[in-house]
Amino acid sequence: MFRRAVLHILLSSFLFLSLLSLSDCHVPPARTMSHGARPMPNKGAKNVSNIAAEVAGYTGVAKQIIDLAVFGVAQNRSYRRLADFTDTVGNRVSGSHNLDRAIKYMYSAMTKDGLDVHLEPVKIPHWVRGKESAEMIVPRAKNLAILGLGSSVGTPPDGIQAEVLVVKSFEELKQRASDAEGKIVVFNQPFVSYGETVAYREYGASEAAKVGAVATLIRSITPLSINSPHTGWQDYQEGVKQIPTACITIEDAELMWRIAQRGQKIVVKLTMGARTLPDVDSFNTVAEIKGWQHPEQVVLLSGHLDSWDVGQGAMDDGGGAMISWEALSLIKDLGLRPRRTLRTVLWTAEEQGGIGAQQYYNFHKGNLSNFDLIMESDMGTFTPVALQFSGSDAAKKIMEEVVKLLAPINTTKLEGGAEGTDIALWMKAGVPGASLHVENSRYFWFHHTEGDTMTVQDPGDMNLCSALWAVVAYVVADLEDMLPR
Amino acid sequence: MFRRAVLHILLSSFLFLSLLSLSDCHVPPARTMSHGARPMPNKGAKNVSNIAAEVAGYTGVAKQIIDLAVFGVAQNRSYRRLADFTDTVGNRVSGSHNLDRAIKYMYSAMTKDGLDVHLEPVKIPHWVRGKESAEMIVPRAKNLAILGLGSSVGTPPDGIQAEVLVVKSFEELKQRASDAEGKIVVFNQPFVSYGETVAYREYGASEAAKVGAVATLIRSITPLSINSPHTGWQDYQEGVKQIPTACITIEDAELMWRIAQRGQKIVVKLTMGARTLPDVDSFNTVAEIKGWQHPEQVVLLSGHLDSWDVGQGAMDDGGGAMISWEALSLIKDLGLRPRRTLRTVLWTAEEQGGIGAQQYYNFHKGNLSNFDLIMESDMGTFTPVALQFSGSDAAKKIMEEVVKLLAPINTTKLEGGAEGTDIALWMKAGVPGASLHVENSRYFWFHHTEGDTMTVQDPGDMNLCSALWAVVAYVVADLEDMLPR
Repeated sequence: MFRRAVLHILLSSFLFLSLLSLSDCHVPPARTMSHGARPMPNKGAKNVSNIAAEVAGYTGVAKQIIDLAVFGVAQNRSYRRLADFTDTVGNRVSGSHNLDRAIKYMYSAMTKDGLDVHLEPVKIPHWVRGKESAEMIVPRAKNLAILGLGSSVGTPPDGIQAEVLVVKSFEELKQRASDAEGKIVVFNQPFVSYGETVAYREYGASEAAKVGAVATLIRSITPLSINSPHTGWQDYQEGVKQIPTACITIEDAELMWRIAQRGQKIVVKLTMGARTLPDVDSFNTVAEIKGWQHPEQVVLLSGHLDSWDVGQGAMDDGGGAMISWEALSLIKDLGLRPRRTLRTVLWTAEEQGGIGAQQYYNFHKGNLSNFDLIMESDMGTFTPVALQFSGSDAAKKIMEEVVKLLAPINTTKLEGGAEGTDIALWMKAGVPGASLHVENSRYFWFHHTEGDTMTVQDPGDMNLCSALWAVVAYVVADLEDMLPR
Repeated sequence: MFRRAVLHILLSSFLFLSLLSLSDCHVPPARTMSHGARPMPNKGAKNVSNIAAEVAGYTGVAKQIIDLAVFGVAQNRSYRRLADFTDTVGNRVSGSHNLDRAIKYMYSAMTKDGLDVHLEPVKIPHWVRGKESAEMIVPRAKNLAILGLGSSVGTPPDGIQAEVLVVKSFEELKQRASDAEGKIVVFNQPFVSYGETVAYREYGASEAAKVGAVATLIRSITPLSINSPHTGWQDYQEGVKQIPTACITIEDAELMWRIAQRGQKIVVKLTMGARTLPDVDSFNTVAEIKGWQHPEQVVLLSGHLDSWDVGQGAMDDGGGAMISWEALSLIKDLGLRPRRTLRTVLWTAEEQGGIGAQQYYNFHKGNLSNFDLIMESDMGTFTPVALQFSGSDAAKKIMEEVVKLLAPINTTKLEGGAEGTDIALWMKAGVPGASLHVENSRYFWFHHTEGDTMTVQDPGDMNLCSALWAVVAYVVADLEDMLPR
């Protein structure tokens, strides 16, 4: 998951090329009407009980989807797909060879699965970490585990060796501004929440540069560490000197804070080979089941295919990508084809600020009124807790009925406030949005670390997420009417 | 904490030298009799109610100790001591310069604290890690985080490159013995409990060598990982070829297991510079408050001063060492002096199989009958849950009364089964033993990793542990009679 308060979207190209697109001449499968839904006569003027009855007509098909995903031959398939994908490709940072491989892998795998697949080109950033290290030299020698932050500049080849100023907040940095000149500023801010504390990762470098610091080392944004540094995006402010910036572990931030509190001098040597290369070509990966009645209308499911360059990117966001593919597979396997098009988009370069999603929005926003619902899973695919939804009150009433269909897996809760870097622009433009709320109390332990691997995933949880995702997408795509705005 | 099913104790010297020992001419402080305990007339024939009354007489002094430790000027002192010690010295593996520094630091600090301090020499092992790395080369390049195991031999300078055999158990290794020749055996055993699963770390290398393996990589012994390898001791069996052995992370063990399950070939390159140098001189560090009536009789408190060569050794076992010092400080600060001697021993080379403790036992066992109670804290100094006690039923009855004095900190539970590598020999010989049971559900997340640092410690918890430790030790040392055997 990427979080950034301000999106600085830099797109060099708005070109849409349906490269490698398969034919749209999809032979409609026989419709399965086992859910018993029938066209309703009073379009656009349904009352609540009519809608409830229409949605309740999908009870049977919802159960079919759930049975297939959780107990049937598709059991554990999304987990196996994620394992094979991440074990084979590894992590997939924007601009990397691995991300190219990942896109080719998914294009091929989803094509073999019988889906309509095409790629939509995007120019994406190419930041490379290079070799990096940090060592406390005074008062004693100690290696510091670090991860340089995305978009950071590097140090000179011989590194930067400087005295350290340790602060706990931006406020303390301001109060001690006169102490910061020529220093490496270490931020040892307490973890409050990801949304709040991530400001130090995002803005720490520029805030420190403003008061004369030569580099920053920032306590990783997490409540738990086993000497584990986290990476992520950071934002240089315009007009402010760009200084190297990396995250250190909670342990080392607290160590240096304690030493500083004792009045002892600390000297650190930081070496980072990070650099930003020219933008490169990439793609959003799109797979579809075309709608039989309104193929131009779309229910969009999504996750992002890129990750950081550590771990496997299994949690962030391989899982979200896989359940968005799996949902289409489940529907296809049951021989279902909804009225509207079901479209899975696997975004590229989300971690760089939603670059792929911005490109997609720019190209498709002219077709805004045909987007029925836009869904993203980017907070993990652990035990599902609820569907998060953003839309009009009238749409919420319908969605409350839809989630009742999830009774067999006990996830009938609808919450407000859908979120997702990649769907935010659409929701802002008024398109209803949905995201997956899972039991993610451990999410930020592993987020953007070497620990984001298959080990944190559970096949049973992924079955539930896939079932939820498929039921919601299919039913909304098959209702007689689009969700009201 | 060290755990080893069989202790192979190799001691080259049984020489006892009270080097640097301060004078025993300790001026007795004025006794504080505020607890109201008085000598009882019927020595050796007390009934239960007499004992209960005698122990209850310590309610006031127990409260004084608790107040001083938890709310008074000693509040957070054991935490501060541990932080200063571990921040200054760092980790302290057997044979290292850091362990020498640690002993000097503690000798000096406890002397300044007004305690009688002396050092007792021990020859200890000197294993050095050297430079080490592992990389999966086939089916794709991936760095594997490793920690070589204590006593492991190294690889040739260019490393060992070999195909991998992944197994989940010793049984599977036996079944696939014919596949192991010339391979690197990867153990991906599930974590059941530390006590059970640690067998793979201890015996994995020799079991694999027996079937022709050239090295072993063992899943770290922990229920949780953030790409965090664990180290620890391992045992080569006599007459079996010694092959290099290291722990890898849960993540990488599972990764290789999944790849192997798909029938794919895996090749790993392992390079370890580990070697064992000649034994070196070290010391058990001993601090005392001499008893006023029976100075030859001893209540012994302890933790071990050595650690592994990763993290800070704050949890394992800096905390145990610090509360064993703090207990004496609290008693001294209150102007108390018990009938018997209170002796804190900070063991050396526990992680190598309790080498310092074995030496201490060999030298002092002639004096067995004067050891009243022997206590060790080596499972963390988190929130105390209970006192673990091993001794006769008659002794247990007394200890049940003693722990009632801990009511102000809600830790009045006495459990059976004291444990501690360093006190095991004494308990086996019939000396009553006690250990600290704390809320240590997270202990093995950090055990023997870079994450064993001050970050896992809490000053409030350490206050409680110190108070408990001091009350128990003082009261037992001041009762009219020694604990019955």
